[in-house]
Amino acid sequence: MALTHFDAHGDAHMVDVSDKAVTARVAVACGHISMKRETFDIISEGKARKGDVLSVARLAGIMGAKKTADLIPLCHPLPISKVAIELTLDPDLPGVRIEATVKTTGQTGVEMEALTAVSIAALTVYDMTKAVDKAMQIGGIRVIVKDGGKSGRYEAQ
Amino acid sequence: MALTHFDAHGDAHMVDVSDKAVTARVAVACGHISMKRETFDIISEGKARKGDVLSVARLAGIMGAKKTADLIPLCHPLPISKVAIELTLDPDLPGVRIEATVKTTGQTGVEMEALTAVSIAALTVYDMTKAVDKAMQIGGIRVIVKDGGKSGRYEAQ
Amino acid sequence: MALTHFDAHGDAHMVDVSDKAVTARVAVACGHISMKRETFDIISEGKARKGDVLSVARLAGIMGAKKTADLIPLCHPLPISKVAIELTLDPDLPGVRIEATVKTTGQTGVEMEALTAVSIAALTVYDMTKAVDKAMQIGGIRVIVKDGGKSGRYEAQ
Amino acid sequence: MALTHFDAHGDAHMVDVSDKAVTARVAVACGHISMKRETFDIISEGKARKGDVLSVARLAGIMGAKKTADLIPLCHPLPISKVAIELTLDPDLPGVRIEATVKTTGQTGVEMEALTAVSIAALTVYDMTKAVDKAMQIGGIRVIVKDGGKSGRYEAQ
Amino acid sequence: MALTHFDAHGDAHMVDVSDKAVTARVAVACGHISMKRETFDIISEGKARKGDVLSVARLAGIMGAKKTADLIPLCHPLPISKVAIELTLDPDLPGVRIEATVKTTGQTGVEMEALTAVSIAALTVYDMTKAVDKAMQIGGIRVIVKDGGKSGRYEAQ
Amino acid sequence: MALTHFDAHGDAHMVDVSDKAVTARVAVACGHISMKRETFDIISEGKARKGDVLSVARLAGIMGAKKTADLIPLCHPLPISKVAIELTLDPDLPGVRIEATVKTTGQTGVEMEALTAVSIAALTVYDMTKAVDKAMQIGGIRVIVKDGGKSGRYEAQ
Repeated sequence: MALTHFDAHGDAHMVDVSDKAVTARVAVACGHISMKRETFDIISEGKARKGDVLSVARLAGIMGAKKTADLIPLCHPLPISKVAIELTLDPDLPGVRIEATVKTTGQTGVEMEALTAVSIAALTVYDMTKAVDKAMQIGGIRVIVKDGGKSGRYEAQ
Repeated sequence: MALTHFDAHGDAHMVDVSDKAVTARVAVACGHISMKRETFDIISEGKARKGDVLSVARLAGIMGAKKTADLIPLCHPLPISKVAIELTLDPDLPGVRIEATVKTTGQTGVEMEALTAVSIAALTVYDMTKAVDKAMQIGGIRVIVKDGGKSGRYEAQ
Repeated sequence: MALTHFDAHGDAHMVDVSDKAVTARVAVACGHISMKRETFDIISEGKARKGDVLSVARLAGIMGAKKTADLIPLCHPLPISKVAIELTLDPDLPGVRIEATVKTTGQTGVEMEALTAVSIAALTVYDMTKAVDKAMQIGGIRVIVKDGGKSGRYEAQ
Repeated sequence: MALTHFDAHGDAHMVDVSDKAVTARVAVACGHISMKRETFDIISEGKARKGDVLSVARLAGIMGAKKTADLIPLCHPLPISKVAIELTLDPDLPGVRIEATVKTTGQTGVEMEALTAVSIAALTVYDMTKAVDKAMQIGGIRVIVKDGGKSGRYEAQ
Repeated sequence: MALTHFDAHGDAHMVDVSDKAVTARVAVACGHISMKRETFDIISEGKARKGDVLSVARLAGIMGAKKTADLIPLCHPLPISKVAIELTLDPDLPGVRIEATVKTTGQTGVEMEALTAVSIAALTVYDMTKAVDKAMQIGGIRVIVKDGGKSGRYEAQ
Repeated sequence: MALTHFDAHGDAHMVDVSDKAVTARVAVACGHISMKRETFDIISEGKARKGDVLSVARLAGIMGAKKTADLIPLCHPLPISKVAIELTLDPDLPGVRIEATVKTTGQTGVEMEALTAVSIAALTVYDMTKAVDKAMQIGGIRVIVKDGGKSGRYEAQ
């Protein structure tokens, strides 16, 4: 089986989507950043009082989604029609769970935009708390829903 | 303990580094993307013959490192003096292991650049193979070495 | 009354416009930069002979309009179909009056693009003349016409 | 008197600063956005409870400062070492007052960065509240302090 | 005859395309970079074994096509639906021949995107081999096919 | 002989320049765009009267120089300290000759910045006149002077 991002010679190209239908598409991706209990407590308190790490990370993720075609070499530029990012403090991790939902009306899907939004939001959490915890770890980044294209609905198991 | 990215009022700001020394700094970050065996085999064959996913991902990661200050809201722009990214096929994962090394001579560290390089490289692997495997997962993104600033050398355990 | 850029939890998001109609839209914004008489005279002479500040500012404004979605966190990316910027020397100000007209065929309006074009053009005038006048002031930036969306035509009074 | 951004032929160029000293530089700029009383009240309540317009505008301004050399055609790229933006609700305006402080250690000043930060923050306030008030007006954008270069300290009167 | 990128006053503007039909459009551009025989041999060997200059240049060209509206002041932003770049080693030049094909479904043509792709790919070849050959020369950059707009098909003679 | 942009495994990387001296560097590049006599006459008249193609191309080239590290994958970001671009109408070509001079004080040279400035200026001339002449050709892009680094002064023969 061949990868669509390479032509018959094995050279990378941006796949021709000009014959694909313009349809409403949605993708949801998730991920998390785990940290020390002490770091988690600092973020949690900031959420309630001042120094809201999650709000900064949410904005960074939204803006990151808009940069996807600039970051991922063979991604098509897309007119994104919605981005929403939910960041949840999870004391069991301990850390922050991130879920991004992206919509477009276009010729290709938006799972890369959703994954990029999650990644940039997680990196921003790291940036803002790295002074107190260098051992934080970002993981679990994956697509959980993708719908609207020719290949039908995908839901992660 | 307070986070340095917020001032006394809890408002986000870009930390003043103008009094920090200009020193040689280095950071190394790693991460991986895990996938189905079948997907791993397709990437492995492409590496040997044609359709080299890892080369595209490597370049994307290098270019991504240069965009870090544009992506992470409170990151300082830095004159990066080196970026190298190693992508290794790991049959036990199965998947791809990614390690990025970034250097600068500046007033702040480059761990965010290294982490961003790993993240964008991993997202690019996802993008290029998503047609055959939507369940791939990106994880283990963390700093393993950071050196050159006032806080001394950090090595992940 | 709630602001549309926040969800029920007060979290910022990029509003879902996927169900809005794709219509022809136009927005006109204006603004000005006021300066010392001496600075005004230097710009006026350059316009006639050489060193045309207004041409540089016009181009900067046009290019700025194309960056709107990159600059304003919750703005939707839009396929702009026209940008025109008029810069007029006003001896009574004294200074430069700026008016930008932007068109698109899309799901949201282009008033942010028009306001951004005016702002960047004004900042460019400041940049090019700041060596002779640091006290210049930018003001009066507002929308004067917006048309083409569901909410109908808006004209500033 | 000639403008430094044009050469002897009247052609625009990026001024040669390679012989200027690398010194610590700071600039402070301010501006405001005025609005209807009702809009002011909505923003004020969001500040206290949820839907914090000022936090989003602050981040946009900080990120905008980093894009200055990309937006203003003849601006030199600079390694910014600090950006802080203060947004104050002023019931007498009524509206929001914005003040941005930018620092660098470089060969040119950062007043354009400070002015850009104020402009982008103001535009973001407009974007987030335009659904309830299209008549808002941005003004008073000017430099209030500039220090650190050969020309000495400038303070607005 | 007047140029469409200037209005009746001779001021530059982004042409209004809002009344043009949305049609499938394609453009093909070509160019080359000529070099010393020794440099050509080094690139040729790398292609076969390791250090593949052409793969890096191809990716740079694809990503460059996506930046066209950001680089060319009066270009309209476009949702590109395909980019493919062919780089061929030509021993008779000696050097590398580059051909880029770009597609969109939009209101303006994509010849600027194709020309930009070729230019950035050629510059990248220069960058990667400049340590061994500073005298390389880029030339022959032109449009060879343009189709899909109102003005009909154009083919270079 | 090996290319410096590839490591021992043949993988592309951004070369480590952290041990190179920070020195004053300059590069000059040139190129041209040739066109039909009729097109040349239109541009020449616009220069004298209105619709100044060369001014727009000059600005585009200057701004393009600042984007070099964003466009060329393995280029180091550099604090450019000067960009000047000369565009000359050459009736013998007929067409436009372009020469760009770039300076920096840094750890690597600026020939890529000078070449990029020339390329973007030439592409902009094409964009602005393509409505009257699709057969224009860009060529002769090369480095004519490079000075300031360890390898000494280079002058094209």
